[in-house]
Amino acid sequence: MLKVGIVGGTGYTGAELLRLIATHPEAEVAMITSRAEDGLPVDELFPSLRGTTNLRFSVPEVDKLASCDVVFFATPHNVAMKLVPELLAAGTRVVDLSADFRIRDAKLWSEWYHEEHLCPDLLAEAVYGLPETHKEAITTARLVACAGCYPTAVELGFLPLLEEKLVNPQQLIASAASGVSGAGRQAKIDNLLAELDGSFKAYGVSGHRHLPEIEQELALAAGGPVGLTFTPHLLPQVRGIHATLYSQILDSAVGLDELQFLFEKRFANEPFVDVMPLGSLPQTRTVRGSNMCRIALHRPQNRDTIVVLSVIDNLVKGASGQAIQNMNLMFGLPETMGLEAVALLP
Amino acid sequence: MLKVGIVGGTGYTGAELLRLIATHPEAEVAMITSRAEDGLPVDELFPSLRGTTNLRFSVPEVDKLASCDVVFFATPHNVAMKLVPELLAAGTRVVDLSADFRIRDAKLWSEWYHEEHLCPDLLAEAVYGLPETHKEAITTARLVACAGCYPTAVELGFLPLLEEKLVNPQQLIASAASGVSGAGRQAKIDNLLAELDGSFKAYGVSGHRHLPEIEQELALAAGGPVGLTFTPHLLPQVRGIHATLYSQILDSAVGLDELQFLFEKRFANEPFVDVMPLGSLPQTRTVRGSNMCRIALHRPQNRDTIVVLSVIDNLVKGASGQAIQNMNLMFGLPETMGLEAVALLP
Amino acid sequence: MLKVGIVGGTGYTGAELLRLIATHPEAEVAMITSRAEDGLPVDELFPSLRGTTNLRFSVPEVDKLASCDVVFFATPHNVAMKLVPELLAAGTRVVDLSADFRIRDAKLWSEWYHEEHLCPDLLAEAVYGLPETHKEAITTARLVACAGCYPTAVELGFLPLLEEKLVNPQQLIASAASGVSGAGRQAKIDNLLAELDGSFKAYGVSGHRHLPEIEQELALAAGGPVGLTFTPHLLPQVRGIHATLYSQILDSAVGLDELQFLFEKRFANEPFVDVMPLGSLPQTRTVRGSNMCRIALHRPQNRDTIVVLSVIDNLVKGASGQAIQNMNLMFGLPETMGLEAVALLP
Amino acid sequence: MLKVGIVGGTGYTGAELLRLIATHPEAEVAMITSRAEDGLPVDELFPSLRGTTNLRFSVPEVDKLASCDVVFFATPHNVAMKLVPELLAAGTRVVDLSADFRIRDAKLWSEWYHEEHLCPDLLAEAVYGLPETHKEAITTARLVACAGCYPTAVELGFLPLLEEKLVNPQQLIASAASGVSGAGRQAKIDNLLAELDGSFKAYGVSGHRHLPEIEQELALAAGGPVGLTFTPHLLPQVRGIHATLYSQILDSAVGLDELQFLFEKRFANEPFVDVMPLGSLPQTRTVRGSNMCRIALHRPQNRDTIVVLSVIDNLVKGASGQAIQNMNLMFGLPETMGLEAVALLP
Repeated sequence: MLKVGIVGGTGYTGAELLRLIATHPEAEVAMITSRAEDGLPVDELFPSLRGTTNLRFSVPEVDKLASCDVVFFATPHNVAMKLVPELLAAGTRVVDLSADFRIRDAKLWSEWYHEEHLCPDLLAEAVYGLPETHKEAITTARLVACAGCYPTAVELGFLPLLEEKLVNPQQLIASAASGVSGAGRQAKIDNLLAELDGSFKAYGVSGHRHLPEIEQELALAAGGPVGLTFTPHLLPQVRGIHATLYSQILDSAVGLDELQFLFEKRFANEPFVDVMPLGSLPQTRTVRGSNMCRIALHRPQNRDTIVVLSVIDNLVKGASGQAIQNMNLMFGLPETMGLEAVALLP
Repeated sequence: MLKVGIVGGTGYTGAELLRLIATHPEAEVAMITSRAEDGLPVDELFPSLRGTTNLRFSVPEVDKLASCDVVFFATPHNVAMKLVPELLAAGTRVVDLSADFRIRDAKLWSEWYHEEHLCPDLLAEAVYGLPETHKEAITTARLVACAGCYPTAVELGFLPLLEEKLVNPQQLIASAASGVSGAGRQAKIDNLLAELDGSFKAYGVSGHRHLPEIEQELALAAGGPVGLTFTPHLLPQVRGIHATLYSQILDSAVGLDELQFLFEKRFANEPFVDVMPLGSLPQTRTVRGSNMCRIALHRPQNRDTIVVLSVIDNLVKGASGQAIQNMNLMFGLPETMGLEAVALLP
Repeated sequence: MLKVGIVGGTGYTGAELLRLIATHPEAEVAMITSRAEDGLPVDELFPSLRGTTNLRFSVPEVDKLASCDVVFFATPHNVAMKLVPELLAAGTRVVDLSADFRIRDAKLWSEWYHEEHLCPDLLAEAVYGLPETHKEAITTARLVACAGCYPTAVELGFLPLLEEKLVNPQQLIASAASGVSGAGRQAKIDNLLAELDGSFKAYGVSGHRHLPEIEQELALAAGGPVGLTFTPHLLPQVRGIHATLYSQILDSAVGLDELQFLFEKRFANEPFVDVMPLGSLPQTRTVRGSNMCRIALHRPQNRDTIVVLSVIDNLVKGASGQAIQNMNLMFGLPETMGLEAVALLP
Repeated sequence: MLKVGIVGGTGYTGAELLRLIATHPEAEVAMITSRAEDGLPVDELFPSLRGTTNLRFSVPEVDKLASCDVVFFATPHNVAMKLVPELLAAGTRVVDLSADFRIRDAKLWSEWYHEEHLCPDLLAEAVYGLPETHKEAITTARLVACAGCYPTAVELGFLPLLEEKLVNPQQLIASAASGVSGAGRQAKIDNLLAELDGSFKAYGVSGHRHLPEIEQELALAAGGPVGLTFTPHLLPQVRGIHATLYSQILDSAVGLDELQFLFEKRFANEPFVDVMPLGSLPQTRTVRGSNMCRIALHRPQNRDTIVVLSVIDNLVKGASGQAIQNMNLMFGLPETMGLEAVALLP
């Protein structure tokens, strides 16, 4: 039984880790930290967990966390990088759900996060935690930097096209929309139900922090630089990311059937990527609460713009589920363990 | 491995049975029927199930259903009573999620459902499928009539008060609200998102079909007739029932602490009833997707009106989860098997 | 043209006053205050107002406010009572949308609001701003204390029954639900969309501040003390209050038709109360954005419990619309001026 | 006072015409038709209208409709073209909210609507009812074909860029999302709240009927053929369209400030187009219930992809409000008459 520590347990990704690990047959949460809620029973904050846990939030202490087999950081950026070096030194493995170790270039990281990176040396060692692209490296990694929510949906949808150099890598567009749980459990007027319900808007249009992360990984796939226009939008719903991806095919003669075949082959051995039949229109509810990513291909009017649709649950495949998938790989467990639940539909 | 048949698989309770049984370790769906969708792969209708099933809908045939260990009816009323006698004769046990066998008095049934009952003889044999009141009888039953969704929430909240004769049984009020999945997966203008979102209303105020069912069971608990005013409301959300129950305490000297103790004792051995601490305010999301019923007691201004709050997920504890709980009991499996998932919050 | 001042303009009732007055033919907003947003153009905070106003928020200064004909307080409680005496002394009339002057008994006010009242002398002069009960007094009032949102819906529904002494005044129950805009525009985790969407809960069950206000006004109608159990609930929607009111009829022989006739007569001259036909089920969306209150009567199973359903828009008839209705009466304008807009349905 | 007839009054655009005309100072609804609801009082179907109308639905009869000054068709496609020739012959002017007369090429119309056009001769006469592009022609038109909902949002956002030949007309992308009222008031399982709430999806990706209409109007602006990829999505909300428009600027040296200036100039005299300040993020709620279109420009990372955001209320500027705007122009009334209401926010 793996002993799991969770740093930053009062947010939505923390709650989701607790929900998923509660039924994981080979892992249990040994400690969960929160400075603000020190001493509070976890099930008072999240009554959905009543009857499944006796844990209380505690102040994060490295030596105690170091007694865990693995520590998850479900924190805002800029927290993990303060504690990770010590934990690794103590032999504890780390899955970081925040952005601290996702970008390999410390300077680029600083530009987008407006801080100095505290342990740039670890950036080279950290493995990007998208199992569909870095699976082997993850199995032996000490430090996994979980892919972000938008990046997971966008990267999985573009990957096969870029790996096979079928589309113009300089003219990629991702128009994506997320449920508001992606904004975290923070007291902000902008995220009140009274501000968002029955309404829709774009945000971060001029520059969203997930852009450099996505471009980094797409460039890896393309074998060269890419240019992406990324437009996130906020949905009046709790969970779900839907990415609508546009790219220009280089050879008009390549048919949609060939692309479909390519996608199916690329993800044939990936338990959490579902390439739907041609013409499908994936809905975010078909992955609600599950770790699946569902993808569908379109080519409107048979013109040169390829449209890929990709959906995930931002809190599962976009965060806590993916973290557990990474943990399973790191500790030699079946990749799907604890992640078999079917999406909640309706 | 129990072989399960599902009659009427295209509705929400059918979909929910499929979702729950997909991870049940001792049961599998052997056949699922739908006249309208005969031949259609189940996962085309419900893409959330992609990767978990190869089943197709088929026309219901009694002899094939009879080869199952247990058949669930996830149908509108008036369907089960046509097929149940034959299935029982063939030795197949039945869990009916519809209303056909809930009311023991055939005449009363006819008044509310505007049909003659086709097998009134079975009404005496059928066991009312609320495990918290009829557990022992369920274990040996051939035919279980699953409690309705509102009835489950209302009965569990009133039971201890009536069993102990602490409140006036003639002045019970249940003001309850349900998510719209309770109205079924039917093409009705009234249930369009454009008609319901951002709005709230009462319905069935002058008489809802769950009234006689609730009064029957509460009378059993009270040991005599009861009078209930039952007002259902429709919530702009998919899942969840919240019942706010009012009753007049007979002896003002009985304290709220005593009532709390009584509720805790009454449900101490019930794995799916959570009596929350005094002062709690249960939210429907704390049971979303789970089989729990959470209950909290209040006594405003210390006056004589006792307020009980009770929440369930109408599709789980109010339908398909309860059906599986009943199945577990009927076949000697642990009562909680396949029903351990934590509620989806947020 | 009436010159209107608004104190506390950054909340939802402030925004709603701006929306309604923008098309009022005889009133215009001359100043609107906010300490936090001093200097900010109003239409930056509320882009819905772009093109209709050049106002900027300013710090509240009594002498400037005193140059208005009427000042609205759209503030939390405890603000108006600090400024009202000076404004009245300067000859400016006041419509207070907060709770400071609603309760005539200063001691009772202090019990519920946990503060000393700063100008108890004005409590006797302040007129309770529910035009359907205090219309004449409002026309000459210097200070009107607008009825609260829940109180408006609950009082209008109970009034005729109590005025005619038809029901037991000691056993009144109000089970009411509100959209979350009633909780104000404040940064609170509890009111995030991610916390509320797709969920429903009761709150303030043990004691909500609107209880003493409602009991005070119902007692006036009944000509003696009343006992009310008031249970508010929070809806996953922005606007709307729905009250389900239960009372015990004293004389079983009084028919529902008589009650209907009584309600129709009572409100025959009230432009903003719509007594719907018997059997109606009012939806909150039928009053969304409008100043109407719609009411319907039911008597389930012809038993002794009378059920009254009452809906309003909490921000209009429950706050800013009612404030303008009061202003119209105070200044001799037609009661409905500026309030004729039809509800936004769908 | 203009006498208005409405054909097809039981849908959402019919209801919205009734709502808006109820407060229009120079127009009144003289008759409203529905075969299905013949004889039913309008306010029984739409209780929001109680107190504002005594109309009943009636069967459409051309001679009676011909007594109106103007007839609105709020019908599915294929209805207006059956009645319009007779109405025009009788001297009645027509505003068609359906698609029958929007596309000038009868053959193209037939390809997308799978019907023969019944009066292709009128296609040349019909004026496309987007006042921001065809205002002068509208003033004298007998027959106006109101622009569709998506087309209005998309065209207004692209127009200035194409008119000035600043972007590549062959690589236009419109990723747009609509509230579900756009799907009409029809009994369809797909549009139930239980199917849509808390979920998001694309639809019509391979070809939506608004595509040829948009391309026709954009080609007019560009002075040559255009190529558009148009991806509609369905929002879990009632009202609102949000269009995110991507185009490739031809001359990288053209600055965003110049584009902003261009947009402001282009729409300076348009009362219903609001070019927001650079960097703005328009929300659909800022136009809810109003006839405004709000537009904002972005140029992410200062690269060559220009992003235009455009929001409207699909039932107002996207349908009934625009119809009234057209009527105002046709009859010499102020363009904004009856359309001054401020959006409902929150």
